[in-house]
Amino acid sequence: MDRDQANYLFNVMRLAVGDAVALFNGRDGEWRAEVAAANKRTGVLTCVGQSAEQADPPDLWLIFAPIKKARTDFIVEKATEMGARRILPVQTDFTNSERVRVDRLQAHCVEAAEQCGGTFVPEVAEPVRLDALLADWPEGRHLMFCDEALVGGSSGLPDQRGPWAILIGPEGGFSETERARLRGLPFAHPVALGPRVLRADTAAVAAMALWQDRLGDWG
Amino acid sequence: MDRDQANYLFNVMRLAVGDAVALFNGRDGEWRAEVAAANKRTGVLTCVGQSAEQADPPDLWLIFAPIKKARTDFIVEKATEMGARRILPVQTDFTNSERVRVDRLQAHCVEAAEQCGGTFVPEVAEPVRLDALLADWPEGRHLMFCDEALVGGSSGLPDQRGPWAILIGPEGGFSETERARLRGLPFAHPVALGPRVLRADTAAVAAMALWQDRLGDWG
Repeated sequence: MDRDQANYLFNVMRLAVGDAVALFNGRDGEWRAEVAAANKRTGVLTCVGQSAEQADPPDLWLIFAPIKKARTDFIVEKATEMGARRILPVQTDFTNSERVRVDRLQAHCVEAAEQCGGTFVPEVAEPVRLDALLADWPEGRHLMFCDEALVGGSSGLPDQRGPWAILIGPEGGFSETERARLRGLPFAHPVALGPRVLRADTAAVAAMALWQDRLGDWG
Repeated sequence: MDRDQANYLFNVMRLAVGDAVALFNGRDGEWRAEVAAANKRTGVLTCVGQSAEQADPPDLWLIFAPIKKARTDFIVEKATEMGARRILPVQTDFTNSERVRVDRLQAHCVEAAEQCGGTFVPEVAEPVRLDALLADWPEGRHLMFCDEALVGGSSGLPDQRGPWAILIGPEGGFSETERARLRGLPFAHPVALGPRVLRADTAAVAAMALWQDRLGDWG
């Protein structure tokens, strides 16, 4: 284990040789383990037996424009709980945020999975420009385009299975250029999220709930 | 206007006589107004004309067990955006939190409505014990009981219109006594929120999204 993990287990949690730990690596489910050796900088855990099968979420990506730090952290935590497989920060015309630190967001995903007893950790991708992402869009993946200009209409999510992505705009919304482009893409489905304006972090959780309920693994 | 409002408009935002402000009181829609008089402690705004009709959310209550301060604030903000009409903090067997300050939570609702251009502010009720609330339950109101023990099943929300309430438990979940009681109540519908364990704040947003989509004003 690495130094941070050893510090957490042996200094913060004060575990000693023989104590039990639940382990997961994001691929092989959850395992019961025992502390075999412990010191300040590292340690050894021995797997005793599997306690849960690996449980992967559906093939759903969450694409979002980073906002203020606390709310970006929140989106990443919620995407892990709500079952996104991949998290993609994108730069849009109106994105206005500090630089995204992918390693920090990735660590948040691990914490969220630990907190909720999950066995899967979504991958946080390097930030890209939205237009570049759309130009290189993977064949067969649907896009749920949460268009804040559609406030008021019905939700509009089509009943099509398969890989999907959810796109949430920044606090300032999408530019007219972006909106026109998104509306012209055959794989993009504009979706309204009710009659009230939602903040970007609220929209992310609400859109994932809607998708999981209608097309994902909540049904 | 009160001192805080005058301070915000005239000292923070630096508005002067003749400047435009959007006003709402939670009952009469949104109004264009102009600053008629401004000083440090108070001021006068004159309504010029209505800019939006009053828009009330469906008759949905959000009942939740207060958690850590930041996450409680978050739940209240999100309940305003997602369209809850009333927010009821409850004390459950496993609730473990600081005292709830209703005035502070109510102020958060006002801020959330301002932020999102809403015209309605949910009422935050005084905290009560869950068993007392259930004993005095209003006739005809359905209860969506988000039971964290149901993780994995289908959502189970029946297609019944009318007044509803959503109940979200504390981080430690409901006690066996509470769960047994809730399962025996004719107005309570146990609902699962997917196969992953959700934190209380995530569950609140996800449950409101599900409800608004299936039974509320998102359809």
